[in-house]
Amino acid sequence: MKSIFFRKWYFWMCVLSTYFSLYAQKDYKLWLQYTPITNPETVANYWENVQNVISTENSETLNIARSELKEGLKSMLGDHFDISKKADNIIVLGSFKSLNEKMKNQLKYDFDKIKKDGFIIKTLIEKDLKTTVITAKNDIGVLYGVFNFLRLIQTNKSIEKLNIIDSPKTDIRILNHWDNLDGTVERGYAGSSIWNWQKLPEFIDQRYIDYARANASIGINGTVLNNVNANALILTPHYIEKVAALADTFRSYGIKVYLTARFSAPIEIGGLKTADPSNPEVIKWWKEKANELYKAIPDFGGFVVKANSEGQPGPQNYGKNHVDGANMLADVLAPHGGIVMWRAFVYSEHDANDRAKQAYSEFVPYDGKFKENVLVQVKNGPIDFQPREPFHPMFGAMTKTPLMIEFQITQEYLGFSTHLVFLPKLYEEVLQSDTFSEGKGATVAKIVSGKINDHVLSGMAGVANIGSDLNWCGHPFAQANWYGFGRLAWNPDLSADSIANEWLRMTFSNEENFVKPIQKLMLQSRETVVNYMTPLGLHHIMATNHHYGPGPWVSNLSRPEWNPTYYHKADANGIGFDRSDTGSRATAQYFPEIAKQFNDIKKCPETYLLWFHHLPWDYELKNGKTLWNGLALQYQQGVNEVHDMQATWNRMQAYVDETRFKEVQMLLKIQYEEAKWWRDACLLYFQQFSKKTLPDGVEKAAHNLNYYQSLQFPFAPGI
Amino acid sequence: MKSIFFRKWYFWMCVLSTYFSLYAQKDYKLWLQYTPITNPETVANYWENVQNVISTENSETLNIARSELKEGLKSMLGDHFDISKKADNIIVLGSFKSLNEKMKNQLKYDFDKIKKDGFIIKTLIEKDLKTTVITAKNDIGVLYGVFNFLRLIQTNKSIEKLNIIDSPKTDIRILNHWDNLDGTVERGYAGSSIWNWQKLPEFIDQRYIDYARANASIGINGTVLNNVNANALILTPHYIEKVAALADTFRSYGIKVYLTARFSAPIEIGGLKTADPSNPEVIKWWKEKANELYKAIPDFGGFVVKANSEGQPGPQNYGKNHVDGANMLADVLAPHGGIVMWRAFVYSEHDANDRAKQAYSEFVPYDGKFKENVLVQVKNGPIDFQPREPFHPMFGAMTKTPLMIEFQITQEYLGFSTHLVFLPKLYEEVLQSDTFSEGKGATVAKIVSGKINDHVLSGMAGVANIGSDLNWCGHPFAQANWYGFGRLAWNPDLSADSIANEWLRMTFSNEENFVKPIQKLMLQSRETVVNYMTPLGLHHIMATNHHYGPGPWVSNLSRPEWNPTYYHKADANGIGFDRSDTGSRATAQYFPEIAKQFNDIKKCPETYLLWFHHLPWDYELKNGKTLWNGLALQYQQGVNEVHDMQATWNRMQAYVDETRFKEVQMLLKIQYEEAKWWRDACLLYFQQFSKKTLPDGVEKAAHNLNYYQSLQFPFAPGI
Repeated sequence: MKSIFFRKWYFWMCVLSTYFSLYAQKDYKLWLQYTPITNPETVANYWENVQNVISTENSETLNIARSELKEGLKSMLGDHFDISKKADNIIVLGSFKSLNEKMKNQLKYDFDKIKKDGFIIKTLIEKDLKTTVITAKNDIGVLYGVFNFLRLIQTNKSIEKLNIIDSPKTDIRILNHWDNLDGTVERGYAGSSIWNWQKLPEFIDQRYIDYARANASIGINGTVLNNVNANALILTPHYIEKVAALADTFRSYGIKVYLTARFSAPIEIGGLKTADPSNPEVIKWWKEKANELYKAIPDFGGFVVKANSEGQPGPQNYGKNHVDGANMLADVLAPHGGIVMWRAFVYSEHDANDRAKQAYSEFVPYDGKFKENVLVQVKNGPIDFQPREPFHPMFGAMTKTPLMIEFQITQEYLGFSTHLVFLPKLYEEVLQSDTFSEGKGATVAKIVSGKINDHVLSGMAGVANIGSDLNWCGHPFAQANWYGFGRLAWNPDLSADSIANEWLRMTFSNEENFVKPIQKLMLQSRETVVNYMTPLGLHHIMATNHHYGPGPWVSNLSRPEWNPTYYHKADANGIGFDRSDTGSRATAQYFPEIAKQFNDIKKCPETYLLWFHHLPWDYELKNGKTLWNGLALQYQQGVNEVHDMQATWNRMQAYVDETRFKEVQMLLKIQYEEAKWWRDACLLYFQQFSKKTLPDGVEKAAHNLNYYQSLQFPFAPGI
Repeated sequence: MKSIFFRKWYFWMCVLSTYFSLYAQKDYKLWLQYTPITNPETVANYWENVQNVISTENSETLNIARSELKEGLKSMLGDHFDISKKADNIIVLGSFKSLNEKMKNQLKYDFDKIKKDGFIIKTLIEKDLKTTVITAKNDIGVLYGVFNFLRLIQTNKSIEKLNIIDSPKTDIRILNHWDNLDGTVERGYAGSSIWNWQKLPEFIDQRYIDYARANASIGINGTVLNNVNANALILTPHYIEKVAALADTFRSYGIKVYLTARFSAPIEIGGLKTADPSNPEVIKWWKEKANELYKAIPDFGGFVVKANSEGQPGPQNYGKNHVDGANMLADVLAPHGGIVMWRAFVYSEHDANDRAKQAYSEFVPYDGKFKENVLVQVKNGPIDFQPREPFHPMFGAMTKTPLMIEFQITQEYLGFSTHLVFLPKLYEEVLQSDTFSEGKGATVAKIVSGKINDHVLSGMAGVANIGSDLNWCGHPFAQANWYGFGRLAWNPDLSADSIANEWLRMTFSNEENFVKPIQKLMLQSRETVVNYMTPLGLHHIMATNHHYGPGPWVSNLSRPEWNPTYYHKADANGIGFDRSDTGSRATAQYFPEIAKQFNDIKKCPETYLLWFHHLPWDYELKNGKTLWNGLALQYQQGVNEVHDMQATWNRMQAYVDETRFKEVQMLLKIQYEEAKWWRDACLLYFQQFSKKTLPDGVEKAAHNLNYYQSLQFPFAPGI
């Protein structure tokens, strides 16, 4: 009986899923597709372990957890819950304290191992009755456990005998939205801001809830709603009530709201004459502002501040320094439990020093001087979110200060939302870099998670790639970067490989014939973009302002360090920025083991070669080729690799819904054309200096250099 | 057997539709929900008439028609097609010429009755075999027929014996997108532009296809992609290839692409020193531009031009007039079959005349002078898309010129995308207004459809309310305005009542307990917004620039006719704009029958009272109340009506999915608060002049006038 019934059910399930998918927006559902599992044996197997879901308590978060679990299971396995079953093969959800004594006894040792926000998923067997318990120290931990459990089914893993004990390795796992109050998004390539300030606070868009769900599913627990290039109006009552409405919406999903604080806000909206952080009126103004914020949002997270950076106001406007500014704000937030994330992204046009050295020079002397609720937020590399940079030398250099790492999820310098680039591979490279700050093994991951210097606070920030596009991120695969950032913020030691694997299975398909080649494609994609944009350590040679496409020739910008020519220094003698002991000595900012390696042309990894060294065009690379030939071949290789990506994707039609299949196909076509554009424009430009012909295997440019230099993109997004 | 099977099927259908709807975006699907029909008898009934779908030809449009029909039927009725059935109870799709001789014979008289784009849906019975034929003169007519057929099922109408012969009454049924190249939308309240210029031409967003489907389903056959406040860059090769990609996407859906032409483009992108329409270089430039456009887009529709209006350049900059400008462009487009839609929305700050009179004064003397491929595009009323205006006196006054009517679908002056206002009621009021231009019965509808003066061209333009929001329009009910505009453009004599009915059934539910009260609510909603914003003929008293909320006090703008005080003229003696014979004599622009009525205080409909007359505060209204009391009570009534809308909607939870139910609930709450804001701000302001107390029944304001005058909305959308 069951089998006939099951076959009928299965038949209609498949038929109906076709109808509904026709108009459903798969893209919108991100990695929470909860795709019906089509193998009857697999479904039957899962059924045996999940006859019912019982929750031991009620709270908004636990209700969300239960409903997410039930709906997710229903969607993947069909509605087969047997609510009469209260003993065998059930899932029990609840905080540790709500469990019965027997369960508590069975779990107490495990429980000692988890930290705040961590969870346990464990199969308990008692007198032949099987229970899967999902428990945690707090409600949000249970929700994280539920998403983990669902992920097991989404990726077709066994749930028969589970023993998962997991806790996040960083405290603050946060998205930075560079969203302006007018609805535009700086460096946003996925439409406009998802915050509808005009309709807030009354109108809670379904998107806010789905945003919170998606973030909770990967452990993200904070969001900075507005641009680091801040507008003080966000701190006026008019906006605070809107921010509070978002905070209310996100709270049950474990997400705290943060804002950027414009340092001159006391002048702009407070009517004061100064924003000097030592001025009592200014301090009083910020104190009252903090009181006002916490009255509206009792769990308000705190401030991110971009001060004295790229024209933003800051304490230096008043002869004070970053410590003065950060500590003043930290003091007003401390009574409420708030924190300050003070950005170290500073460089000055009046400083003749190598821009790559300036943040370190300015901040490292302040180590130990910041209040304990201040984190210094440091970009992953010393310049600015390039396709490849060595890790920032500040990591490991400030032992008394918690350093957050700031990654860019949005692809400002990485092909916008058009190029398929799997960024967790970049994040992993940085996080697994060994700083040698405390001897071998002091990776950036360990420093960021506070392990090395035992900090109370730790965190990871990602500049969001989220916008109003139906698919959130503008590119189906850009969703993987949001996902991967969250997973790495939870555990900075996860591998990009495993992240790609689970994301693909959740988002597209568990078919091995799909997962294997596309996982490989994703993992290669970051090296590919480096190859066709900035091989061998080149950097910051993008076009002006929008950073869309190549602009290695640009040398007319007002600030020297805004010009690509500042970074590649190509001339008749060669190419590259000498940051070694014979040059800017930026290498000396690293610990000796690393400094020695970067400093020595022979030991320096070729991936960073032109980042640290200026080398003649006929310098011999490790593969025996001249620098010029190697550079040209690397550009060509990037192009070839995109071509291969296209071929691989074209074989995947059977595994992907038509809409997403076509989307990726169209986007890869653009990526291929733009890879060629990068190759041709850069090689034609550098060829003027090298005076050498292209080696065999490198295709000739389709146009001349003038053509590439003439291209204009007046309304390129994200500026 | 069938019945057991059917019950099973029905059971799973319901179960599964719940799963899928959980994450599906119903909002996104507009009126093309194709909701599964849950009454088994109804389903079985439909089944009997649609055993199979056969198409007699292949073309892109016909393939779309077949696939839309099949998928729509599958979604509503389940997949029951019996492909072995080739004779009985089938639907045959195809153009007339492709039908077999028997069918042709049976349909030939009907066929003579349809015009271009019209269609026939007819049940033919031959030897007991039943066929439903959907046919037309051209492929797009068949697609229109298919959508009409689907609508019958969507609205639960019988399809047993059909005999529908329908043709559009206007030629050009077009949306005007006021979308800027930077992605913002002027007067857009639903996110950013749906055109992703950066990713075009290669990336065809699924949204473009769904946009085309939605438009084709209501007969819209043209789209102007960019803002009437135009940027000449849209006419450069860089953008033309992007426009061509959209045209390629829309073509099979019967939608032509049009652009706005910035009159000074020859200077801005052509390198000329002048844009004088009589200059041979200028004419040559436009000719070449037209050639370039038609080479890329062989069926390019033509230009919309806003010239010498609100600062836009135009022929008057060179001492020439509108005819000179329009005809020059008409000449360059004529060889390609293109048209010019020349806007009549002109008024000058240097003209001391009543703004309401200026377009008529300027344009009517040109009647008969425009080339035959020019249409003059006239807003529905003489001012600017107010909640209520009398019809524009130009309708009926230019017998030799085809006049398009321009409606605003986006709610610039009507509560943005926050207020539920069913605009077809407004459109109907205008379209059914009798101009008396050729005696009684010369309605605006008949003039616009070319009936009265027998024009070759006719058309209706709607300023789109479409943006990147998940639900396209920002408010679930704003979709009804897009829908209703399309239906009225097809047939300007449709009733708002029937449009509301069919839209509700297609979009939400066929349940009478839902349709009846909500249809009533929609039909009342336009009068409600007039009541709480601009009762008794008041107009243009919105706040500056953004037009969000009340601003009757504004009198400091540089141009006199931009100030609300210009329009209401409230003073100690009374309120209203005297446009009668004792005033600006704007009434004289109407045909005598109407002029007499508007001119005479006693005959003038009270809905237009203060539009045409300045009256003392104690003027006695028809209901015996003084003007002041009547005005105050009307404001209060608007507020009360919104309160009733809330109560009605709150009873509808059982009939609407949770997401949309809550969305509308939240939006009605905002609308209620804003209705009170309008009432309080306006009455407090006018009370300064009337010096009278509020009548019984009118609630006192929550704040004082200063408070309302102090409100600022720095980033209100749509400017």
